[in-house]
Amino acid sequence: MILFCSDYQEGCHPAILQRLSETNLEQTPGYGTDDMCLQAAEMIRKRFHCENAAVHFLVGGTQANATVIDAALRSYEGVLCADTGHINVHETGAIEASGHKVLALPGRDGRITSAQISVAAALQGDDEHTVRPGMVYISLSTEVGTLYNRSQLHDLYQTCHQLGLYLFVDGARLGYALASPVNDLQAEDIAANCDAFTIGGTKCGALFGEVVVLVNPALQPRFRYMMKQHGGLLAKGRLLGIQFQTLMENDLYFTLADHAVKEAMRIRTALMNKHIPLAVDSPTNQLFPIFTDEQLETLEEDFAFSTWERVNESSTAVRICTSWATRPEHVDQLIAAIEKL
Amino acid sequence: MILFCSDYQEGCHPAILQRLSETNLEQTPGYGTDDMCLQAAEMIRKRFHCENAAVHFLVGGTQANATVIDAALRSYEGVLCADTGHINVHETGAIEASGHKVLALPGRDGRITSAQISVAAALQGDDEHTVRPGMVYISLSTEVGTLYNRSQLHDLYQTCHQLGLYLFVDGARLGYALASPVNDLQAEDIAANCDAFTIGGTKCGALFGEVVVLVNPALQPRFRYMMKQHGGLLAKGRLLGIQFQTLMENDLYFTLADHAVKEAMRIRTALMNKHIPLAVDSPTNQLFPIFTDEQLETLEEDFAFSTWERVNESSTAVRICTSWATRPEHVDQLIAAIEKL
Amino acid sequence: MILFCSDYQEGCHPAILQRLSETNLEQTPGYGTDDMCLQAAEMIRKRFHCENAAVHFLVGGTQANATVIDAALRSYEGVLCADTGHINVHETGAIEASGHKVLALPGRDGRITSAQISVAAALQGDDEHTVRPGMVYISLSTEVGTLYNRSQLHDLYQTCHQLGLYLFVDGARLGYALASPVNDLQAEDIAANCDAFTIGGTKCGALFGEVVVLVNPALQPRFRYMMKQHGGLLAKGRLLGIQFQTLMENDLYFTLADHAVKEAMRIRTALMNKHIPLAVDSPTNQLFPIFTDEQLETLEEDFAFSTWERVNESSTAVRICTSWATRPEHVDQLIAAIEKL
Amino acid sequence: MILFCSDYQEGCHPAILQRLSETNLEQTPGYGTDDMCLQAAEMIRKRFHCENAAVHFLVGGTQANATVIDAALRSYEGVLCADTGHINVHETGAIEASGHKVLALPGRDGRITSAQISVAAALQGDDEHTVRPGMVYISLSTEVGTLYNRSQLHDLYQTCHQLGLYLFVDGARLGYALASPVNDLQAEDIAANCDAFTIGGTKCGALFGEVVVLVNPALQPRFRYMMKQHGGLLAKGRLLGIQFQTLMENDLYFTLADHAVKEAMRIRTALMNKHIPLAVDSPTNQLFPIFTDEQLETLEEDFAFSTWERVNESSTAVRICTSWATRPEHVDQLIAAIEKL
Repeated sequence: MILFCSDYQEGCHPAILQRLSETNLEQTPGYGTDDMCLQAAEMIRKRFHCENAAVHFLVGGTQANATVIDAALRSYEGVLCADTGHINVHETGAIEASGHKVLALPGRDGRITSAQISVAAALQGDDEHTVRPGMVYISLSTEVGTLYNRSQLHDLYQTCHQLGLYLFVDGARLGYALASPVNDLQAEDIAANCDAFTIGGTKCGALFGEVVVLVNPALQPRFRYMMKQHGGLLAKGRLLGIQFQTLMENDLYFTLADHAVKEAMRIRTALMNKHIPLAVDSPTNQLFPIFTDEQLETLEEDFAFSTWERVNESSTAVRICTSWATRPEHVDQLIAAIEKL
Repeated sequence: MILFCSDYQEGCHPAILQRLSETNLEQTPGYGTDDMCLQAAEMIRKRFHCENAAVHFLVGGTQANATVIDAALRSYEGVLCADTGHINVHETGAIEASGHKVLALPGRDGRITSAQISVAAALQGDDEHTVRPGMVYISLSTEVGTLYNRSQLHDLYQTCHQLGLYLFVDGARLGYALASPVNDLQAEDIAANCDAFTIGGTKCGALFGEVVVLVNPALQPRFRYMMKQHGGLLAKGRLLGIQFQTLMENDLYFTLADHAVKEAMRIRTALMNKHIPLAVDSPTNQLFPIFTDEQLETLEEDFAFSTWERVNESSTAVRICTSWATRPEHVDQLIAAIEKL
Repeated sequence: MILFCSDYQEGCHPAILQRLSETNLEQTPGYGTDDMCLQAAEMIRKRFHCENAAVHFLVGGTQANATVIDAALRSYEGVLCADTGHINVHETGAIEASGHKVLALPGRDGRITSAQISVAAALQGDDEHTVRPGMVYISLSTEVGTLYNRSQLHDLYQTCHQLGLYLFVDGARLGYALASPVNDLQAEDIAANCDAFTIGGTKCGALFGEVVVLVNPALQPRFRYMMKQHGGLLAKGRLLGIQFQTLMENDLYFTLADHAVKEAMRIRTALMNKHIPLAVDSPTNQLFPIFTDEQLETLEEDFAFSTWERVNESSTAVRICTSWATRPEHVDQLIAAIEKL
Repeated sequence: MILFCSDYQEGCHPAILQRLSETNLEQTPGYGTDDMCLQAAEMIRKRFHCENAAVHFLVGGTQANATVIDAALRSYEGVLCADTGHINVHETGAIEASGHKVLALPGRDGRITSAQISVAAALQGDDEHTVRPGMVYISLSTEVGTLYNRSQLHDLYQTCHQLGLYLFVDGARLGYALASPVNDLQAEDIAANCDAFTIGGTKCGALFGEVVVLVNPALQPRFRYMMKQHGGLLAKGRLLGIQFQTLMENDLYFTLADHAVKEAMRIRTALMNKHIPLAVDSPTNQLFPIFTDEQLETLEEDFAFSTWERVNESSTAVRICTSWATRPEHVDQLIAAIEKL
């Protein structure tokens, strides 16, 4: 069986294991105060053009989201996001567990608009009986693989700024977003158009790890307290530093993401050619074709996908993921199988 | 400089890196549902003689403690522990952050007694104006390296059982406890005398990782929900499975701990010979000598320790840690330096 | 100005003040352990035919809701409710503040159906990445004055029971629901068809006070701890006991509610006669007429309403509330004004 | 039986019931936005000489404490207080329930010193592994009836200010503190020497109600959101406004407190004359005599006290409370009984 279920089904890029081995017996202080972390942070500040940002390393995405949001908001504040947002549907209420309401807005292919944000803020007014929006959360790429373009992101940020809301970009799949053929955002555009963002390692070449970049100085004080309280201050913090050093060197992170998206686009072309409908047309490493039961039965003899949703009585949308680790020959086989359907 | 600051200042035992490399490109499902995790869990159940226990893998100790405690307690329940307990002093209020009061009892060398627990429960009575004790937390070895012996642990467990309290053993340094020359507990005694315990990997040979073993069936249902909500469900859960498989094979975990404690005991002997006083006399991998300022200045030319506490105007207690990674030649050098004081 | 803004704009029924005066200097123990509370609880158990229910008295509705929900749910569980539900929109995230996600379903005139609940439970499956529904919250009457009939309530309860969910009925306006001409529920039907419900005093004749009736024994243990922790254990608990004794005597509570609904129905008839459209057609003490700007300007010379929502460029839905304290002559004046529009 | 158990065992001063009756059918807007509340707030600002303070009215003390503390602190911050502090021992973990650790210091007769605060702050340093003190909580009078004098309060406030900590004075029994013969604080000294304080009504003449006075402007923004989220925004807020208007008029609040303390001092003199030892020597309305079992048995034929603590095998400390409602003839009877012992 060849798995296209997710972008976290393999270990990590070999260069990372190599570096972990080389440094394994070096002695360093704990909790991310080591040189590897300091250097990785500096590389990220440079690459994303945000010299005054605070850069922190956490292990996982839910942890990173919950920590950033809890650090930014007051008790009575909530976070606006698309109803499909990871924090709204796939984090077992981690945001609410630290006391904050997720204020879900009806998304369109995983995205929300600045108009929706303005309306939500206007509706709240400043009524103490309702949760005050304090932050907007978007994911880039979104949970369904879609993107915000430069103009949309800029627009969201301006709107947030005017309304006194923080804009937080969940970049669990940031690499794959930037690698999309239709993307017009540069790395530095992210940092310039939000208050905080994450750079996902887990799904883009690392064993694990999410970088939290706090661009807005108001979010920076005592963030490490929040990390510790949320169980996110890794004792051997250097494991994260080493991984992100490796990923930032020679833009390895971006190269790996490019590979994944190129392979996804090859699959997409095959689906298009076969007139397979798409639940969402994603230009990144996740595809959401709708197969008939018969087609799916055939494909699942050799390939595994994630079930996305039952579309009607005889067909199902699945998620096909590529990743930094996807082998071209596996994609060839999948394409051949699609062509045979 | 040779660091004796902590037991998490190196990477991991090379066998783990080896195994991570070998399995790196295998495809597995995420979140700990893979075979490596299943096998590691089975090995642990066997080794600790607790066939019906639920075994889960988390990344860090604060995360593991907070998740277990939050899963076990109702809102109005708190957790009794020694005032030196990790959850009371070194987790930035993570337990309180999920709503539970830590009910600190004056510890004696890091330990509490069943008499103290009985008194605390009796004092509470069943008064709804006060926090109800719902659990007792002990660490083994304790934060100051001391132990509970078999009779003490059994006694605590009986008391807890009679009072309707869960007993939770934080085993962040469980390996080092079991390896102590004065220890009379077997692995299976732990499982037989508590409701839940952890097996620390981070400080005992792993890159990271703590095993949560839920012995009491009442603690088992939907624990994975709690893990996810606490940000502790690792996407590539297999990284934990692989590490603990490796550590459990041929009792590597115990061998590594033996090494650390043997080296610590060599240092302890040198300190004794030199009549250096100890803030706490620990029989495990942490030592707490009290050095004069002059002595410390001399030693710190070549060695680094953790500052523990200022004892008086001219002397300081430090913590010297050995670990699975401590090199005998480094210990030789430290001993030589102590002898020269 | 005559206020029809809400059902809490006056003090209380004079019989309550009378009783408070009579008992004022009696000495009683605190925190609701006094005889007045015990007797009021017994009267409620009898009147609602739930002899084994635990009955508690709290001061306010948000407090009562948050306490009941927090007491019933585990951390990873959420509460299903209509998107218009008070807990979802008007409690400043009090439910989330104690860690629980409110799982909003699209309501129809403030109501949800058992079909919606079944679908929500089925969608969750038992996936630890998502919040598990643990309770269904409905309000009766709803926030827009509508009702569940006997068959609907029974159906909801059966569905909840089958799915392992608690059903909680927020009866902040329970009196007004039972007094509706279209209602077919008896007091005892409420208790027989849910796990917990409240009986609102604040809006139905009391100075303040909500009764929490815990019908399901699973919800009863240590509820007073939860009350205290939520700041809801009134020192002079007897103030609540005295009020609900008075309200339960000779069915005063129901008599007062009848009055309010009758007056509301008179206004409703006037609106109907004048062909004023209704945003929601409520058969209880809240009405939601849509007035043109011109009509509203005229009416607001003498009367005050709550703004509900702007409907279009030239008209607005308002809320007209009657209560136990509404004077018939004020209603006469309002009707006359409506007729003149 | 004559009860001396607590200062909340009667209703309220008759003038309050009178005023509630007079205003009962007036129509006002809800949630404390009415004129009665505005006027009461203004009276308090004047009486306590704090013209820029924000004044809010809550129902109970636990609610008031939890709301103030939660509003003031960040997640990672805790509140320093005496180990006997109400928030530490008698609020069922309400502070922890909103995520904040109570950092208990060993009190001396219910008090802490600025030296203790300085040491606690110095020990924390700025170590992200430990809870940062963000506030100091003291009660005045304390839970054992003792006082801080002007110099001590000033000293605490200076220390807090220098250390970046808020000072919060729990004045659940503020009236009784100010009425003590040994007190040297004026009302205005309270406001001038803390960041926030409460003025307790429940125990000093009101049916219920605690005033929160936020002197420090940093604590003022959006406090009403916090009140609502904590279930503390009373629908008929005016009930609180009316009560505190009445209590502030002609200094009724202070007159009532004077009465209670005078009566307590008469009992204290009788105890002294009889050489009854005191567990704590309180100069306010709470006394803590230690009676032998025999003495207690005799007294409890006619009087009820609160048990405080068992002192030794044959004697018990009890709490005797007087209040605004204590009748001189009851005190006469108690004194006579003491004299007869």
